Amino acid sequence: MQYLCRMQFSSSLLENAVNEFAKLPGIGKKTALRLVLHLLKQPASSVQSFGETVIKMREEIKFCQRCYNVADADICSICANSMRRQELICVVENIRDVIAIESTQQYNGIYHVLGGVISPLDGIGPGELNIEALVNRVQKEHPAEIMFALNPNIQGDTTIYYIQKKIQGSDARITTIARGIAFGGELEYADEMTLARSITNRQPVENYIAG
Amino acid sequence: MQYLCRMQFSSSLLENAVNEFAKLPGIGKKTALRLVLHLLKQPASSVQSFGETVIKMREEIKFCQRCYNVADADICSICANSMRRQELICVVENIRDVIAIESTQQYNGIYHVLGGVISPLDGIGPGELNIEALVNRVQKEHPAEIMFALNPNIQGDTTIYYIQKKIQGSDARITTIARGIAFGGELEYADEMTLARSITNRQPVENYIAG
Repeated sequence: MQYLCRMQFSSSLLENAVNEFAKLPGIGKKTALRLVLHLLKQPASSVQSFGETVIKMREEIKFCQRCYNVADADICSICANSMRRQELICVVENIRDVIAIESTQQYNGIYHVLGGVISPLDGIGPGELNIEALVNRVQKEHPAEIMFALNPNIQGDTTIYYIQKKIQGSDARITTIARGIAFGGELEYADEMTLARSITNRQPVENYIAG
Repeated sequence: MQYLCRMQFSSSLLENAVNEFAKLPGIGKKTALRLVLHLLKQPASSVQSFGETVIKMREEIKFCQRCYNVADADICSICANSMRRQELICVVENIRDVIAIESTQQYNGIYHVLGGVISPLDGIGPGELNIEALVNRVQKEHPAEIMFALNPNIQGDTTIYYIQKKIQGSDARITTIARGIAFGGELEYADEMTLARSITNRQPVENYIAG
């Protein structure tokens, strides 16, 4: 118990490094110590590279002025890529979702990162998110399709509903990614809402096989 | 599967930082991304402090010339502390064990860090460890007691046996920390060797209550 509560270090250099690592989410004191002792065994140049890369990332990273994705320049590499369909906008909650969708290598449009979803209980209203920027973007860019890829929950659905009202005048087709039983999932363990929706949104078998 | 195999980043600054974190033991790509995105949300000064503390630790940390513990100076703060019993040496495998014992706040002697234990299967012989330094230390310092606090396994026992032979001429009392059923442990789940030893080394009940 005491070990967990208060570690005793004989070196303040070691202690400071452990404390810095222990500030990271999900990293306790024991894990922090393990990581620091690992770094202690590495060449000084590797540790320097580790520290400098992290500092450089925080200092130099930008947010794309168009889609709010992380970027190395004013416009991110996805928006700047003329090979991608510039008239298809995928609306996501955060950067992690962009990485997840990019990693499927199945999407060839561009993005709009909201920076969160509407969640009154957490004090997050439309004003805290990049929603106005999206509305302006739709008015300016006239996309052919706006595809929502938000997490399937009340907050996600509220956000879709809110944005949809705001861009009502646009000619864009408004879609959302399919929700249903996950590949490899089992019917009996699916929640009722997912199962109900997947029945309502049933698809012709030829679509299924083509997909 | 693809997501796990190859994440797609739109920023090389982000990607480099994730790759640096993913080099740490037990940190996969997904965890690395979570940590980096956390740092991205912190003030630049906090991230700078994180990076610089880690670099400084690796560059400036020393190993105590007497006991091989980590130190901020040539001699560690434990060896330099005149309030501690300088004639009682606790022999441990590594720095982590020093921290564990210090954190009990029950030990008032000094240490000797071996840097490992004898393990022929892993190619670690006595020459790879700080054993000669310990033998020299015993000859020079004439400690009253040498207490082994090694992990209770074959390698630990081999190391104790080897060192004991080497320091046979010394007047020091040679002891090892008690092995037995751990506090809160259950007899039926203890392995036979531990249970057998704890029976052989049974103690008068008054010791038990005093301890």
